[in-house]
Formats: sequence, C-alpha cells, structure tokens
Amino acid sequence: MPTNRQWILSARPQELVTPDVLQLADSPLPALADGQALARVKYLSIDPTMRAWMADIPQYMPPVQLGEVMRALGLAEVVESRHPSYKKGDKLLGLTGLQEYVLLTGNEPYPFQKIPSIPFLSDVNFLGTLGMNGMTAYFGLLEVGKPKSGETLVVSAAAGATGSIVGQIGKIHGCRVIGIVGSDEKCKWIKDELGFDVAINYKNAGWKQQLAAATPQGVDINFENVGGEIMDAVLDRMNLHGRVVLCGLISGYTHQDAALSSFVRVLIKRLRVEGFIIFDHAARFMDAGKDLAMWKMTGRIKDRQTIVKGLDNAPQAINMLFSGANIGKLVVELQ
Amino acid sequence: MPTNRQWILSARPQELVTPDVLQLADSPLPALADGQALARVKYLSIDPTMRAWMADIPQYMPPVQLGEVMRALGLAEVVESRHPSYKKGDKLLGLTGLQEYVLLTGNEPYPFQKIPSIPFLSDVNFLGTLGMNGMTAYFGLLEVGKPKSGETLVVSAAAGATGSIVGQIGKIHGCRVIGIVGSDEKCKWIKDELGFDVAINYKNAGWKQQLAAATPQGVDINFENVGGEIMDAVLDRMNLHGRVVLCGLISGYTHQDAALSSFVRVLIKRLRVEGFIIFDHAARFMDAGKDLAMWKMTGRIKDRQTIVKGLDNAPQAINMLFSGANIGKLVVELQ
Repeated sequence: MPTNRQWILSARPQELVTPDVLQLADSPLPALADGQALARVKYLSIDPTMRAWMADIPQYMPPVQLGEVMRALGLAEVVESRHPSYKKGDKLLGLTGLQEYVLLTGNEPYPFQKIPSIPFLSDVNFLGTLGMNGMTAYFGLLEVGKPKSGETLVVSAAAGATGSIVGQIGKIHGCRVIGIVGSDEKCKWIKDELGFDVAINYKNAGWKQQLAAATPQGVDINFENVGGEIMDAVLDRMNLHGRVVLCGLISGYTHQDAALSSFVRVLIKRLRVEGFIIFDHAARFMDAGKDLAMWKMTGRIKDRQTIVKGLDNAPQAINMLFSGANIGKLVVELQ
Repeated sequence: MPTNRQWILSARPQELVTPDVLQLADSPLPALADGQALARVKYLSIDPTMRAWMADIPQYMPPVQLGEVMRALGLAEVVESRHPSYKKGDKLLGLTGLQEYVLLTGNEPYPFQKIPSIPFLSDVNFLGTLGMNGMTAYFGLLEVGKPKSGETLVVSAAAGATGSIVGQIGKIHGCRVIGIVGSDEKCKWIKDELGFDVAINYKNAGWKQQLAAATPQGVDINFENVGGEIMDAVLDRMNLHGRVVLCGLISGYTHQDAALSSFVRVLIKRLRVEGFIIFDHAARFMDAGKDLAMWKMTGRIKDRQTIVKGLDNAPQAINMLFSGANIGKLVVELQ
C-alpha cells in the first residue's frame, strides 16, 4: 500500500520551529472511494502566517491542532480521480497541507482552484505573483493604501514574496517607492532589477537617516510586513492623513508581540492604519489575477523564487523566513 | 495703566507641569488702536492637548515657543472695541491663551467665534458639550467610528469631557456602551446619570475580567482617549473589522510614548485605527452644534463641570488631568 509522508504538528513552537514542533509521519494511502480524488503535491508555499497557525493564539483562521497535518498552501496535480470535477493531470491550488499527497472530496472548507496553463507563466508563479502574495500586494496596496501618482510608498520586507510585488505595483501607479530589506544583495535586486527608487538595508548603521533622506516629502503609504523597530521608524516619517497597510508583523511572530513606541504618531498625523487579510477580498481574485498576469507577462512585474528541495526540509524552510534567508517567493519543491 | 496677567511658557515640561514650566507675568495693556478690540477671559478650557503644545515635539499645531503666552482655548467677553465686527458684551470662543485679557485684531490665525445666547445653555457649555469636546465626540464617533445600532462601544476616560459625551451619543445611536474610568465615583456618574450600560474602574483588580464579561459579543468600536495598558486590554476584545477612533493617548503624554503590546490584534482582527483631530472637521461644526444643542436642551446629553477658580491655579488644573482628578469638563473660571 502506498504511503503519504506528512509533517504533523506535535508541539507549539516557542520561538523558531524546533525539531519537536513538526514530526514526519507515514500514513497509508487508502484506495479511493467514489467522489474522491488524489493529488500529488508539487510545490508548497512557505509563508510567515504558518508560524501563527502553529500557535494557540486568536487569529484569522483556527490554529492547527496538535496531531494534525500542518496547514500549508500548495500546488498539487491530480494523479487519480473518482470525483466528477477532477481529472488526472489537473493542477490545483489550495490548502494542501505539508504532505506529499492530498485527498480531495470536493467539500473542502477552502475550495481548491484549478490553475490554467498561461504562456510565460510557470506553475510556481501561481503560489507567488499570481497567488496569495500577488493578491495580497494588489488588494492591500490598491484598496487599503489607495496610492496616488506622485505619492511616496515605503515597503518593509521589500524583497519578500509580497513586498517585492507591492513595490512594483506602486511604481506602475506612479509612486516613489522605497524598499526596506535586510541585506545588500536584496537592496541590489529590488533597485536594479525591480525598479524601486531607493533600497535601504536596515542592518546598516545610519539606515534611519537614509530613510529620512530618501523621503524628503515624507511618507504617504506604509505597506508594513515587519512591525517593531522598522515600523516605528517609518511611522516617524508619515505625512498627515497617511495610510498604513498592516499586512504582517513578522518581527513579533517568533517572540512577544511587537511593541510600537511611535504609536502616538497615528494620532498626531491622523493616520489610518488598517489590518488586512487577503481572504476578505476573495470575490475579486479573478480581476486581480488578470492584471497581475498581464503585468507579469509584459515584464512590468518581475519575480524570483528561493526553492528548497524536498519535503524533509520544510521545517528549515519555515525558519528561513525569520532569518531573512529567502529572496522573493520561498517554496518547497517536492521530488 | 491696566495690566494683563499671563502665564508664560518658560521651560519644556519633563513630566507634569512643574513651577519652572509656567511663570506668571504682568504685561501692560496698551490703549486700543483702530481695528482692535479687547476681551476679558471668563473661562479657560483645560485640555490634555495643552501638555503636547508645551513640548517641542512634532504635533498637529506648532508647539508654543518659550517666552510666549501659553496657548489655551477660552471664552472671553469684549470689554472695549475699535473693531467693526466686535462690540462690547460679545462673547467669543477661541484661542484666548492662558491670560486675563486677549487683544483681538480680527486677523487671528484661528478666528474667534461669537457664541449665541440659547435657553438652557450656559456659557461654560460652549467650552465643553457645544465646544471642542462635543465636536470631537460627535465627529470622532459618527464619522470615524460609524456606529450601528446594536454594536458594542468601549470608551476610555469615559468620565472626561469628551468621553462622557461619546458614550451618550453612542446610546442615542443604539449602541451598548461600556465606559472605562479611574474611580468608583466616576463609575457611578456615567452609569447612573449618563446611562452607560456598564462602567469599569481600571484601578480595581480584575477589571480586565469585568471588561470581558461586559462585552460578550466583543467590541465593535473603541473610542480611545488613553492608550497604553487600557487600550491593549480593549484591543484584546475587538471584533473582526472593528474600528478604533484614536482621539487621545493621555497615558503617554507625561512620560514616554505609550507602547502597545497588543498591536498585532490590528492585523489579526483587520481593525481600522484612525487618528483623528477635530480641526479637520471645522467646516461642519454648525451641523454638529445643532444636534448637540438639541440633545443638551432635551436632556439626552447631560454634562458636568469641574471648575477651578482663579487664573493663578491654571497650572495645577492642567496637572489634574493627568491624575484623573476632574469629572466632566475641567475649566478655570477667572474672577
């Protein structure tokens, strides 16, 4: 009988994902019943939100329970089907979980979507630029941030899967775009390849002075992925009636909640700070997908992947997010 | 020659207003030139924002400079006029400053407004319920908070000049209203007199449990005047897509900026947090004034004043705000 290798959530993480947190298990793959289909996972999307899903804290989806397969977005290909909606070879995007195979019944609480074959787009793009990261960048910047031509946009984690697209959509909309990243290599990529106006490495001494120099007209929009000290520095530069798109607070995911010492700026500068989760915009994903696909195909959005090979390495891949080891979209490719 | 007694900003405060910060001076009152008018101050409005005006930090108006008369809102009566728009006996509302007399030229950067004589309304109401506090409560709650009938509203500093009106407007709009205050006497006033559904004294042990028990359906709107630990506790109770009207952060005015440890809730719960300053709504003050006057005259809004007598006691009055010593509107009445 074939088996399915699965990462099981076995303990709540304290900080990073230590070996006790995720444990690899083999479970038998039963013969398919009528109405079921089996898909083999090709790529797993590795996202900061997975760290929150592991923790027993209030959040936008229920936390993963101990003993369950760890939740993950992934791209899977149907290998066998007794379900009328799925046929062999279909490529599906959805919450596959951190495992080799996913059993489908068509009644998933978060339905899987078939991905089309589009020239110039590879499968992995559907996890990044055309997937949750692209959607998050698109709706977060355009619906919450509401950029106007000539405004100044600052993006943190700007070489990440979401931030890198936010900056490029900002440029398409005529903004001056400053990206904050954690290495000189990332600076080079977002400035030379992606067309950010300024890239700042927050690990360099004097980066806050660089930020001030790069924003002579102040900051109109902060697309925030990090929180903590980085967000504080950007809040200090915000203009009256500026907007903060609160997409992530990764600096606080592995330790205590990020404390904000510049929060009083929200009052003084009459800022609008909005928390934002992409699932609230699901009804309009198709519209966004058309724009994003066009921008990607015409080279107005460029992207890049950091690919970790093998399901065995998934826990280390998750930890890479918190050390800033990835550039662009981080995925695990299954062999 | 008559003299004008004035409180001069002489040093920046460290925490509270110590004797070196404000110094009383006599300055001569010159004879009026053509186009000038002289008004005698009757009431001074004592507001938390005065503490910010004293500090050399970025804020919504320029800080008061050392050597200048301390800025304050007040109500003054014209005693002599050589200006066509002012006549003796006119009552004026505006930035009189912390002094006995104000010299008017008609070119004030923030124009003075004549107050009408309205049955059942006393002069002092124009500094509170019909003044900046009423306007702040009105626009902050209705325009930023956007309450719907049946929603739960939590107001901090709920026995203060603004918070007490916010809660009553919330009741008029059909909200369940919880007020957070700092004494049992304040609890009694807002619950028994003003009609708040629940009043919580944050100085009692177990107040966070009381807050949880008082908000079984969570919190839809937080009208925040305090910040820090109190705001953290309310953020923990917020519902998805809740709104935080950020009106003040008084807990941070006399020491470091308030750090928020529950800020991650803004992300998880997709909150909208908006900083808000009443001057942004000046064009619609008349509309608000009509509603507020009607509610006040018909008893749907009740108010109360804490009156400190004598210009000499103005510095102590400012400090009362930060020890929570006032109930309702705090004013200095000049003799």
